[in-house]
Amino acid sequence: MSDSLHIAALGVDAFDRAFEETSTPFIHLDWRPPAQGDTDLVDILFNIETKLVDEKGESLVQKANKEAYTRICKGQPVLKRLRPAHECIPGMTKKSIFHAGPPVRWEDMCGPMRGAYIGALKYEGLAATDEEAERLMASGEITYGPNHANRCVGPMTGMISYSMPLWEVVNETYGNTAYCTINEGIGKVMRFGANGPEVIERLKWLEKVFAPAMDKALVRMGGLNLKNIAAQSLAMGDEMHQRNVAASLNFYKAICADFAEVLKDDPNGPAIVEFLVKKNEQFFLNLAMAMGKALLDAARDIPYSTIITCMSRNGVDFGINVSGLGNEWFTAPCLKPKALYFPGFTEDEANPDMGDSAIVECYGIGGFAMGAAPAVVRFVGAGGLADALEYTRSMGRITYGPNPDLAMPNVDFAGVNTGIDIRKVVATGLLPVINTGVAHKLPGVGQVGAGIVTPPMDIMVQALKAFAKKYL
Amino acid sequence: MSDSLHIAALGVDAFDRAFEETSTPFIHLDWRPPAQGDTDLVDILFNIETKLVDEKGESLVQKANKEAYTRICKGQPVLKRLRPAHECIPGMTKKSIFHAGPPVRWEDMCGPMRGAYIGALKYEGLAATDEEAERLMASGEITYGPNHANRCVGPMTGMISYSMPLWEVVNETYGNTAYCTINEGIGKVMRFGANGPEVIERLKWLEKVFAPAMDKALVRMGGLNLKNIAAQSLAMGDEMHQRNVAASLNFYKAICADFAEVLKDDPNGPAIVEFLVKKNEQFFLNLAMAMGKALLDAARDIPYSTIITCMSRNGVDFGINVSGLGNEWFTAPCLKPKALYFPGFTEDEANPDMGDSAIVECYGIGGFAMGAAPAVVRFVGAGGLADALEYTRSMGRITYGPNPDLAMPNVDFAGVNTGIDIRKVVATGLLPVINTGVAHKLPGVGQVGAGIVTPPMDIMVQALKAFAKKYL
Repeated sequence: MSDSLHIAALGVDAFDRAFEETSTPFIHLDWRPPAQGDTDLVDILFNIETKLVDEKGESLVQKANKEAYTRICKGQPVLKRLRPAHECIPGMTKKSIFHAGPPVRWEDMCGPMRGAYIGALKYEGLAATDEEAERLMASGEITYGPNHANRCVGPMTGMISYSMPLWEVVNETYGNTAYCTINEGIGKVMRFGANGPEVIERLKWLEKVFAPAMDKALVRMGGLNLKNIAAQSLAMGDEMHQRNVAASLNFYKAICADFAEVLKDDPNGPAIVEFLVKKNEQFFLNLAMAMGKALLDAARDIPYSTIITCMSRNGVDFGINVSGLGNEWFTAPCLKPKALYFPGFTEDEANPDMGDSAIVECYGIGGFAMGAAPAVVRFVGAGGLADALEYTRSMGRITYGPNPDLAMPNVDFAGVNTGIDIRKVVATGLLPVINTGVAHKLPGVGQVGAGIVTPPMDIMVQALKAFAKKYL
Repeated sequence: MSDSLHIAALGVDAFDRAFEETSTPFIHLDWRPPAQGDTDLVDILFNIETKLVDEKGESLVQKANKEAYTRICKGQPVLKRLRPAHECIPGMTKKSIFHAGPPVRWEDMCGPMRGAYIGALKYEGLAATDEEAERLMASGEITYGPNHANRCVGPMTGMISYSMPLWEVVNETYGNTAYCTINEGIGKVMRFGANGPEVIERLKWLEKVFAPAMDKALVRMGGLNLKNIAAQSLAMGDEMHQRNVAASLNFYKAICADFAEVLKDDPNGPAIVEFLVKKNEQFFLNLAMAMGKALLDAARDIPYSTIITCMSRNGVDFGINVSGLGNEWFTAPCLKPKALYFPGFTEDEANPDMGDSAIVECYGIGGFAMGAAPAVVRFVGAGGLADALEYTRSMGRITYGPNPDLAMPNVDFAGVNTGIDIRKVVATGLLPVINTGVAHKLPGVGQVGAGIVTPPMDIMVQALKAFAKKYL
């Protein structure tokens, strides 16, 4: 070997093996061409940088994104109530049922979403059989549409119907309100598309037994800032998407005194406590989502901002909203998660990615905070500690900055990476990483695994082009 | 600079600065002479290695230590009851009061220990005033001595008197039993030497209100394996000495169903739940200690073993027991912790190191598991994440091996370092690191800070010499 030969392998790793096998010294640089080498996109990125400037030559986009980031960080999401959806959503009728993700028509819905609609109609007493429910959906009598358009979010299928209790979270800094359903626990659950009698029975128990007691406790305590719970839980190994073990307990810890007073004379007290404390380690997920919706909605509609205000999936399409582009959806077909499957299931049976839960990644937790939660990487089949830290660090390349209120002790106390910038995603080719559950593709089956997924790159490109059209 | 000059700085770092200032390239090797350069000790270590061998030439010490390590790891510590000390400790009378650490006489006790004895006599109704209590102690009428000699442990002053409820932990693998008091919570507490009316009142509440309900719940559930709680909590950022936030909640989670049933008709139910869940983040510490005592006692009295079976401090002396040396104490004056002090207090007011709690470091948690609990390093003033990881890794050099049941996700799922070997401590000069609370040196004041501490090296040397005398 000549001393003067220095090999740097750029981008693709196809050559590395040849160097390794011949013991040739080399370094691998993980380089990609900017904007995937698409010169139109490079032009847009360049023009955004150079043309969208104020009189002092400062970037309008950077200023707008700072505002969006600041609003996301400064919001104080306070949990106030747990009460029926029809009290929360203006104009909701017994025949309104909302779903996760961007808009989708009944005839185009995926299996688990169809299963969940059938279940929701039975739960509301609008249909007695599956066939009746399907006829009703096809008849056009049922109003449906995205949760996000109703200040709501829901995990997986995300069903929100008239009688379902919703967590009400007020963003006290900016005055907006957001809602999410109660997490049903594990096993056969509507969010994964199951709709049998035990699913309906559990939802009725949550509505009739659990929610009234919890609401009384919340009213008694006068509100609970969920960001404090999230901060404590990041120090306790939760990323709050696929791991909510600590957060669920911290939530109970915060309300336990008022809850115990409310439950004192309730014969259902022990069952209620057991459901919350012991039987549902994902309990806090839905609260993390309502918190995320409350924080992100405050960052909508900032002119020139390229920050993503929601990422959401309906099991067919993945959709995003971007602050400077209002409520317009940019959509493309969902990907299937890279997942670990429960025994007896395979990827063939997996439905593509689904749910409003990716709202949590929009403010820096979930997949973005895997470094804080090394135990979760094994659950979602995403490697070991080093991978967890790398996922977290890499998200710093596509976000505005670290969230000062949400530190990760395991990542040397760094704040979670907050504010996904579509410019940075397109420029780097690095997609947001989302931790997620996986549903069976057929109606009525339920969860089959957990894993990680990204949005399709195409929606980032669409959004950037729409941004260019609007502002350049 | 000549290309051929290569500088390695060994051991002391006095020269490093000179190299740095002159930009001279060098590497610093953290080398120390074996056994601190003491040739007698080097001889002992060499002779242990070469002379204590079986017919196949295999080390008797290594074999004995493997047995000790295996017993520590294989023990299954099951919490069975919470009941009065006099039901647990054979021969205990109303006038028996036991303390933390190795034996110490009343007239030699440190301030907080004296304060605690005064409090314990008032709590038992044996004295009405401080003066009366002091007279009684001086009279010789009170039986006192180390908790460890009574299968017990207690944090800080470690008071165990007749009426105090004790957690009863049975090591189901080896049949031995261990006990520890209930953690009193924060503020003015007897374990830190406080003894005013609110201290006594809280202890009476624990005895009369809390303990009977908890014992009923434990009997109802039939026992709880504490190792499962410890394993879960290591994945949630606790090292279980100075941080028990997750472990305390996980304990409640495990018993919540039975506890809720027991508390259903108890008017004190809400106060009991609030004490356990919300008001006492160190609640699990005493359970971790009882677990440690149950696990370590099973490794006592193994001929030839150099594994430490307890580390314990009475505020004056630090004592250890070593498996192959039975119940003999090796003692020397306690060091003062390197600590962060609460506002208004300084190191001048700190009492030297105290308590039986270092039993948890003997099986690999506490200071040994700081890598699993980066949030704790700031609380004890011991640096950042890198320091936490380094403390944990370095303890691998003085222990037998990793505990397969207690993995630390933050340390890439490594097991905690278990089984402290006095040979390795003396050979490396590396002392066990202990996380600890700090008491005010005067009686009756209470906690003033938290920090880290080590045993004095002298007791390791004493023990090694005693080992040589017995076996070589």
